[in-house]
Amino acid sequence: MSVKLPEQTLAWGRSRSCIRELAEYAARRKAEIGAENVFDFSLGNPSVPAPDCVNEAIAELLTLDSVSLHGYTTAAGLLSLREAIAQNLNERFDARMSAYRLYVTCGAAAALAISLRAVLLPGDEVVVLAPFFPEYRVFAEASGGALKVVPPREGDFQLDETAFAAALSEKTKAVIVNSPNNPSGVVLSRGSLERMAEILRAHAGKTGSLPFLICDEPYRELVYGGVEVPYVPALYENTMVCYSFSKSMSIPGERIGYIALGADMPDWQEVYVSVMGAGRALGYVNPPSLFQRVAERCIGRIADVSQYRENRDLLCSSLRAVGFECIEPQGAFYLFMRSPEPDAMAFSERAKRHELMLVPGDDFGCPGYVRIAYCVPASQIERSRGALALLAREYGL
Amino acid sequence: MSVKLPEQTLAWGRSRSCIRELAEYAARRKAEIGAENVFDFSLGNPSVPAPDCVNEAIAELLTLDSVSLHGYTTAAGLLSLREAIAQNLNERFDARMSAYRLYVTCGAAAALAISLRAVLLPGDEVVVLAPFFPEYRVFAEASGGALKVVPPREGDFQLDETAFAAALSEKTKAVIVNSPNNPSGVVLSRGSLERMAEILRAHAGKTGSLPFLICDEPYRELVYGGVEVPYVPALYENTMVCYSFSKSMSIPGERIGYIALGADMPDWQEVYVSVMGAGRALGYVNPPSLFQRVAERCIGRIADVSQYRENRDLLCSSLRAVGFECIEPQGAFYLFMRSPEPDAMAFSERAKRHELMLVPGDDFGCPGYVRIAYCVPASQIERSRGALALLAREYGL
Repeated sequence: MSVKLPEQTLAWGRSRSCIRELAEYAARRKAEIGAENVFDFSLGNPSVPAPDCVNEAIAELLTLDSVSLHGYTTAAGLLSLREAIAQNLNERFDARMSAYRLYVTCGAAAALAISLRAVLLPGDEVVVLAPFFPEYRVFAEASGGALKVVPPREGDFQLDETAFAAALSEKTKAVIVNSPNNPSGVVLSRGSLERMAEILRAHAGKTGSLPFLICDEPYRELVYGGVEVPYVPALYENTMVCYSFSKSMSIPGERIGYIALGADMPDWQEVYVSVMGAGRALGYVNPPSLFQRVAERCIGRIADVSQYRENRDLLCSSLRAVGFECIEPQGAFYLFMRSPEPDAMAFSERAKRHELMLVPGDDFGCPGYVRIAYCVPASQIERSRGALALLAREYGL
Repeated sequence: MSVKLPEQTLAWGRSRSCIRELAEYAARRKAEIGAENVFDFSLGNPSVPAPDCVNEAIAELLTLDSVSLHGYTTAAGLLSLREAIAQNLNERFDARMSAYRLYVTCGAAAALAISLRAVLLPGDEVVVLAPFFPEYRVFAEASGGALKVVPPREGDFQLDETAFAAALSEKTKAVIVNSPNNPSGVVLSRGSLERMAEILRAHAGKTGSLPFLICDEPYRELVYGGVEVPYVPALYENTMVCYSFSKSMSIPGERIGYIALGADMPDWQEVYVSVMGAGRALGYVNPPSLFQRVAERCIGRIADVSQYRENRDLLCSSLRAVGFECIEPQGAFYLFMRSPEPDAMAFSERAKRHELMLVPGDDFGCPGYVRIAYCVPASQIERSRGALALLAREYGL
C-alpha cells in the first residue's frame, strides 16, 4: 500500500541547501574541536542584539489587555502599524505610501511567496540577476512560474543591460532584485535601476505587459559609508517592495515584514486584492500580533550595525593581505570572494580542512565564488587569519 | 497596458466571508447605537485571557540573550518544544509521539495549508463532512485539489456512513475532520471515528491507496462535561493532527500550532519530508521564535474555559426558552441553531433587525442553520434575551 506524494514538494523537502549543510558540518566540528577553533562563516544570522526598544516594547505591551494583545488582527496587519510604516517611508523617501498599499507579513520570505503567488500564472517567468537567493526558485516554482537567471556582470555585479534585456520574454511577469544583495553585499546603483526600468518599459511597449519589479529588501538598513540604496518605486512604477524587520531589528525568528505596492503602480487595488487572496491561500491568517505592535513602537529604530561595518573592513583587509580577491561589499553582512580555483565547491572543501566554512556560490547561480557571512564576533575573523593565510598559500597566492 | 493576474487568487482575495461581513456590519452598528445594544455573535475570537503562564513566560524570556531569543530556529521548530509537545501527547494519549514526527507551524491554518500541499497532487480530492470550516476549500484548491462535501447527518452531525462511503473515490487523497467542530460544537464520537477508519481501510483495500485523515483540532481542549475527544491517530493509522494553541491558550494572533504525524503512519518519514518541502514552498521560515518558547514553557496550561461552558448553558436555555431548536454543543464555542425558516440567510437578515448577529450556515456547507459564537461576555447573552424573544415571536414560536 503506497501513497503517492507530490514529487516537487518532496524534492523541496529533500534538497538540503549548501548553506544548511555547511552550518551543520560546522556545528559538528565545533562539538569535536571546540567552537573557538572553527571559523564558521556559513549562516546569515544577525549577530548583534535587537535595539533595546524591542524588549522594552514587549515589557510595556504585557500590561495591555490579554485578549486584544494576543488576539487576531486583520489579515493585512494592524491599521496603526501600517500607518506607522507608511509614515516612515514617506518621511524617508517621499514615497506617497498609504496604509492601504501595505500588507504586513511573516517576514520577507512570506512576502515573496505571497507576492509571487499573487501575480504569477502557470508558465510565467520570473527574471533574477545572479547571484541570487536560492529560495526565489522555490517560491516561483511553487506558484507555477519558472525562474530565468541573468548571468552576473563580474567585477561589480551591477546590471548587465544586454544580458538582462535578452532574458525578458513575452512570459516575463516579474523581476526580483535583491539590494543590498545576498550573497554579494552589492547595492544596485541608481544608474543600474534606472536602466532596468527603461528596459522594462521598452519591453512593455512591445509586449503590452509591464512586468512587476519585486524588490527584496531585508538588508536595506545595513549599508556602510553613506552608500545610497535607491527607493525603487520612485524609479519604476510597477514595483512591489518586500521588506523584513529581521535584519534591521535583529529579530529574524519573530517573522515580521511587509509588502508595499508602490504609489505609481497601475491597477494597484487589483494587485492588493490578489495579495490578500494569496496570503489567505497560503495559510497566513495574520502576522504575529505581539510583534506587529513591537514593530509599530520601534519603527525606525535599527540594531547597532556598526559591528558589521567593522567586520567588513577587517575581513576585506585580512583577505587581501594574503592575496585573495574580493569586491568590497557595500551592504548586508556578506562578502563574495572569487575562488582561486574555478570550482568553488572544491575550494570550499579545501577551506574546510582549515576549519573555514565558506559557502560555494553555485547555489546562488554564481559559480567560482564563495560567500563569507561576516555577521560573527570580530574575534572570529581575527582568529581565522592564520587559517586564511594557510589556505592562500596552498593556492600559491 | 493591463497585467493579467491569477483569477483564482483574485477570487480568494475578493470573496468576503459571511462571517467577516457580518462582523464588520456589527462594528458599524456598535459605533452607531452603542456596543451594549448590539448582540454580536459573529466571530470566533477567544474572549478569555491567556493563562498567566503566557505573560510570565514572556517576561522571563526577555532576560535571555537577544540574539538567540529572537533568532531563527530550525524550520520544524525548536527541538525542545517538539520534545515537550511529544511528551504531553504521550502522557495524555499514550501517543508514541516523537519530536521527529512534529512540525511546528504558524497556527492551525498554516498546518492545514502545509499538510494539504504536502500530500495533494493535482486533481486529488479532499473529503469533508458538512458543516465544515470554509477555508478548507481554499487550502485544498490552492494545492490543486478539489473539495468533496459529505452532506450533514442532521440531528446529531455524527458520521453518515453511507454518505461518507459514497463520497470516496479513486481520487480521494485526504479526509479532513474537525472535532470539536466549528460551526456545530459537536464532538465526533469514538464510534463515528472507528466506522470512518473501517470505511477508509475498506476503500484502500479496493483502490490500493490509504487516504490521509487530517484532524483539525484547535478546539480539542474546549469540551464540556467530560465528553471524550478521541485521539484519532490511535484509531486510524494514516492520521495527521493539525493543532493550534490559539484557543487553548487564548493566543490566536500569535500563530503557533503544529502538525503531528501519527505513530502508525506508513511512510511517515516521506510524509515529513514533504511537509518540510511544503512549509518551505509556502514561505514559512520558522514559527515565531518567542512564542515557540512560550508554548514550550506553558504546555498543558489552558486558559480558563469555564466561562465558555457557562455561556453555552445560558445560551442554550435562553434559545430553548423562546422556542428555538438547538443541538447542545459539546465543545468549542459555537452553537449551531436550526433556522426557523429554510433560508438561513433570510433568517440572519431578520435577526439583524433585532441587532442579533447570527452567521448563516450556508458558507459551512450546511444551509438551514445559523452559527452563534458564544465566546462573548455572559452579559451579552443576558442582554440579548429580549431580542431573541422578539425574533422567535416573529416566527410564531
